[in-house]
Amino acid sequence: MINNNLGVVKRHILRADRTAVDALSQFGVATVHEALGRLGLMQPTMRPVYPGARLCGTAVTVLLHPGDNWMMHVAAEQIQPGDVVVAAITAECSDGYFGDLLATSFQARGAHGLVIDAGVRDVRDLTAMQFPVFSKTISAKGTIKATVGSVNVPVVCAGALVNPGDVVLADDDGVVIVPAALAPQVAAAAAEREANEHAKRTKLAAGVLGLDIYNMRETLAKAGLRYID
Amino acid sequence: MINNNLGVVKRHILRADRTAVDALSQFGVATVHEALGRLGLMQPTMRPVYPGARLCGTAVTVLLHPGDNWMMHVAAEQIQPGDVVVAAITAECSDGYFGDLLATSFQARGAHGLVIDAGVRDVRDLTAMQFPVFSKTISAKGTIKATVGSVNVPVVCAGALVNPGDVVLADDDGVVIVPAALAPQVAAAAAEREANEHAKRTKLAAGVLGLDIYNMRETLAKAGLRYID
Amino acid sequence: MINNNLGVVKRHILRADRTAVDALSQFGVATVHEALGRLGLMQPTMRPVYPGARLCGTAVTVLLHPGDNWMMHVAAEQIQPGDVVVAAITAECSDGYFGDLLATSFQARGAHGLVIDAGVRDVRDLTAMQFPVFSKTISAKGTIKATVGSVNVPVVCAGALVNPGDVVLADDDGVVIVPAALAPQVAAAAAEREANEHAKRTKLAAGVLGLDIYNMRETLAKAGLRYID
Amino acid sequence: MINNNLGVVKRHILRADRTAVDALSQFGVATVHEALGRLGLMQPTMRPVYPGARLCGTAVTVLLHPGDNWMMHVAAEQIQPGDVVVAAITAECSDGYFGDLLATSFQARGAHGLVIDAGVRDVRDLTAMQFPVFSKTISAKGTIKATVGSVNVPVVCAGALVNPGDVVLADDDGVVIVPAALAPQVAAAAAEREANEHAKRTKLAAGVLGLDIYNMRETLAKAGLRYID
Amino acid sequence: MINNNLGVVKRHILRADRTAVDALSQFGVATVHEALGRLGLMQPTMRPVYPGARLCGTAVTVLLHPGDNWMMHVAAEQIQPGDVVVAAITAECSDGYFGDLLATSFQARGAHGLVIDAGVRDVRDLTAMQFPVFSKTISAKGTIKATVGSVNVPVVCAGALVNPGDVVLADDDGVVIVPAALAPQVAAAAAEREANEHAKRTKLAAGVLGLDIYNMRETLAKAGLRYID
Amino acid sequence: MINNNLGVVKRHILRADRTAVDALSQFGVATVHEALGRLGLMQPTMRPVYPGARLCGTAVTVLLHPGDNWMMHVAAEQIQPGDVVVAAITAECSDGYFGDLLATSFQARGAHGLVIDAGVRDVRDLTAMQFPVFSKTISAKGTIKATVGSVNVPVVCAGALVNPGDVVLADDDGVVIVPAALAPQVAAAAAEREANEHAKRTKLAAGVLGLDIYNMRETLAKAGLRYID
Repeated sequence: MINNNLGVVKRHILRADRTAVDALSQFGVATVHEALGRLGLMQPTMRPVYPGARLCGTAVTVLLHPGDNWMMHVAAEQIQPGDVVVAAITAECSDGYFGDLLATSFQARGAHGLVIDAGVRDVRDLTAMQFPVFSKTISAKGTIKATVGSVNVPVVCAGALVNPGDVVLADDDGVVIVPAALAPQVAAAAAEREANEHAKRTKLAAGVLGLDIYNMRETLAKAGLRYID
Repeated sequence: MINNNLGVVKRHILRADRTAVDALSQFGVATVHEALGRLGLMQPTMRPVYPGARLCGTAVTVLLHPGDNWMMHVAAEQIQPGDVVVAAITAECSDGYFGDLLATSFQARGAHGLVIDAGVRDVRDLTAMQFPVFSKTISAKGTIKATVGSVNVPVVCAGALVNPGDVVLADDDGVVIVPAALAPQVAAAAAEREANEHAKRTKLAAGVLGLDIYNMRETLAKAGLRYID
Repeated sequence: MINNNLGVVKRHILRADRTAVDALSQFGVATVHEALGRLGLMQPTMRPVYPGARLCGTAVTVLLHPGDNWMMHVAAEQIQPGDVVVAAITAECSDGYFGDLLATSFQARGAHGLVIDAGVRDVRDLTAMQFPVFSKTISAKGTIKATVGSVNVPVVCAGALVNPGDVVLADDDGVVIVPAALAPQVAAAAAEREANEHAKRTKLAAGVLGLDIYNMRETLAKAGLRYID
Repeated sequence: MINNNLGVVKRHILRADRTAVDALSQFGVATVHEALGRLGLMQPTMRPVYPGARLCGTAVTVLLHPGDNWMMHVAAEQIQPGDVVVAAITAECSDGYFGDLLATSFQARGAHGLVIDAGVRDVRDLTAMQFPVFSKTISAKGTIKATVGSVNVPVVCAGALVNPGDVVLADDDGVVIVPAALAPQVAAAAAEREANEHAKRTKLAAGVLGLDIYNMRETLAKAGLRYID
Repeated sequence: MINNNLGVVKRHILRADRTAVDALSQFGVATVHEALGRLGLMQPTMRPVYPGARLCGTAVTVLLHPGDNWMMHVAAEQIQPGDVVVAAITAECSDGYFGDLLATSFQARGAHGLVIDAGVRDVRDLTAMQFPVFSKTISAKGTIKATVGSVNVPVVCAGALVNPGDVVLADDDGVVIVPAALAPQVAAAAAEREANEHAKRTKLAAGVLGLDIYNMRETLAKAGLRYID
Repeated sequence: MINNNLGVVKRHILRADRTAVDALSQFGVATVHEALGRLGLMQPTMRPVYPGARLCGTAVTVLLHPGDNWMMHVAAEQIQPGDVVVAAITAECSDGYFGDLLATSFQARGAHGLVIDAGVRDVRDLTAMQFPVFSKTISAKGTIKATVGSVNVPVVCAGALVNPGDVVLADDDGVVIVPAALAPQVAAAAAEREANEHAKRTKLAAGVLGLDIYNMRETLAKAGLRYID
């Protein structure tokens, strides 16, 4: 095979620093996405399968074929406690690649959740287990086990590049990927951003306008904004 | 009219065996879909209008025109306790064909719910009544009563063929149709499947890998999977 | 600039009569949409960001550019207690234009909520604040502040024309716009409609068919409906 | 297997009467769809892969799995001159199931074209061969051959029920299915409809209004239409 | 009826100045949209039904119901030579509202084309007639004539507000609406813009960079752009 | 800024070997995609803006913001003869980022075309210039120049990872990316594949079935396929 990304399982990956991951888990996706310079966000088609689902961990990536979840079982073995499985498909597919049995297995391995650019099923069970899953679709349609994919190769999932070991953070607002090497810096930037926002929130709550807090009036006038009656 | 499927109400239909329907109502859609050989699933665009909605019953089918719900009233008369109305439209339409008044009527007739490849409204009332509805859209836009359709003819609803009397099962994972004649066998197969899954779940929860439970390692190696460091 | 709708903030707008707004706030969107003659409904892509969200108020409109929320701050100053901000974008955009900081500011100004044909973020905070928002998308992706738009000009939002001062009503069933001048009449028509529905609901709950309540049998037969066995 | 529709190839099917098929091939899809009573139309997502593509023939149906075109080869053997292959997938899939090699094979067998609710590729070759294909997507992504489907079972393709032997007619306006048994009647009705339209076209071309040709003025006034200045 | 926009035909409308319309017809949609200040563009879902279709004229508007083209016949009578019919639907609908018969009628009345936020059919005939149509969908599915809409009221079509008499310009790049009162100014601004572009095109063709023509280098550096090797 | 991918222009990139690029330009996208092991394909939403458009070259990548094409001018300077500009946006956007002026500039610099996961305009001019463009949308809506992006950083475009210097090949079937380092091998594999297909095509044209050429009958039987009458 010419392409090295198919039919490969990489066993040793460099996971993001655990302390940085823990720090990032305290923030919302919107804050972290800003702190990273507005990159790394998955498309807004990715939604939690139950309200309030939220996850943070290091990526074990898996590349799957349409209608085929064989590599999910291969991925399960590569999970270490604190990992999040990130599943990409080589083409658009809405099939249900993942249900309560795989969730039981992933949870037993210590996984913090699943992010998949396809469908999942057994939503009631996933909710009862409180195993957080973010997916594009919910579908009862199962998959086969016929074609080999890869585990722990770089993947493009819902528009975002994910390298194994990157930090995956997901909440009500979406899913963001922080490159492993940047995790500590991004955590620090997120903390700073949040502190900064606290002060603004207090002023805004008191009725002060953003126009004044951010000194926008002059710039707006220069940009040609006119007030009329 | 050339086509026999328009302007017709079939009064007597052969409903699936009640015992089999009751048995099927114990299972999830994903399980039943597998037990049926992975056929009969509606498209994943069909979603419950409130969380936790779930229904099982025998199909009374109705074929409607875009923006016209006249035949819903005709269908109401054909409902017997335990039926589920399955509504198909002759073209894409997101209008709200169904609201609290029709729900009151259907519920009074003993209907177990509605599945419609279009829109519904009065979601708050439907939730309060706990009348389960699965639809493609939620829309406040009402419909007219001008064109005759049909009741209890075979319809294609959200990609699935539905014959009157078939079993309709819907939950968080979607909507599946079981042909009336196959209901007892499918119920049996679903029971067997679930028993089988119970044993697997226990093993997986204990940390045993699917790779070993399903003896996948050798097949994967033959298919060319390589492990690297 | 040729077009008078860009770069303008209209400070004085004619708001719909407060009594009529209060009256309208008692009804559902489906009822009001019917009472208005089935016009003014936004597309069903507009959904509440948390279950049970509901709003009613007078429109402060804002016209924004893709990926740019600068004018939200300008709009904030124009909010009077009881207003709802209605935000339209000059092209399709799913970015998160609005989060907890702007919500804090809007709430402090007395806004009753936001309707936006784009994305918002900080859903968890918006839920905690119980600040009702109806949007097309949820996205953590922030916006810039670079291009001037307008406030309180007529806008097209999710397919509906909204003039500043119009009544905006939103609930589980969608979002409807009532022109300010028609508000009292529509409120009266909605009340009449609801009274009328109450009587029907009682009959339908007793098992009387719509076919009989609405005298449809003869019309259906004339239209060619045939009953077969 | 419980469901008889999987893993089956039906060798002998009842094809629509050849004379009726030839007659139907003279009409446009819009005319035939009307003649059939406005049923049997596939969704408008089905488009020709090259401008001017057009086909008419008897259906050989095939049911495929996502990303798997194995049964296309099985279907090839069942093609008789004048057939059109109609391919349905058990779930949404945009993969390219069909290209120049299969087209060469189908054409050699006398097929009149392909209708598929998925993707195809080698569009340049298909155009050069003038082998008409109607599909949902164009995609270079190939498929595997791993899972058994069925040939000549009833399928739902792009929202239409297709039985083997039915007439398939496709042109710039879409794809319509005429049940085999109704083909002669529908051909006659289409001819009548077209003759009828010819007279109308002449009048309309002369500037006579549809309002007068169809005597609509009185009905419109009764329905409440008001003319204002 | 409360809402004045339903069931009304306005006979006398103020059409944009003919000289300005003729002037605008010389420009592309992109140029005119810029000249107007980037407003008035319909959504990019609006596409020509045949390659090279192009139209310019004054709007006769029509508001239709889902699956109902009755008012198209009413609109035909209001067409004056040089008009373009702009059709909006009160809800999403992909039905084919318009085909060769109505095109014959419209053409006989002197219409310059049709813009419709729904489907049309008889594409082959429309192409042969060279009657330009811009639509969202192509569908063979016909419509009924049961519910009264309006003609020459303001409508929202594919996201753009259209008042009767406005200029409608459509080509390969989309559809833009120029308010009647602004037509002369916009035509002048478009001419100026095009002259300006000619000079730029010559420079760019000679290999001069936009970076230098527009003096962007300093601004980019200030904005933080860094060049690395 | 934490993330190194924003606000950066990389001047020196390693382009794929010219001989390999020339070799790859002889093949179709479907063939090359297969030769690469079925990876690297963009989503099928990417379509040529005129029929027959086709391009092959080395990637100059550009990362843009929604509604902002400033970096297109920066990218122009980095173009060398034989390059193809690949443009990704940080969020979904359908605006027209590119028209005849930029095309003139790109063409003057020797660019072989543009691939952009957004909209373009001036389609008529692009066609006349025969400057091949593959895009998601066609839109007359222009963009601003306000926010800095990057040039020649790795980007995700329509689901595919593109590194500067990679080979970009696009035709009627879609767009595929070949990593620069693999270009010679993939060209060789494509040649082999095409030779192989020639022999098959001859057999299939003679009426030999794929079932026999590929020896599928036994495998199908083992997989459970049954023939019935």
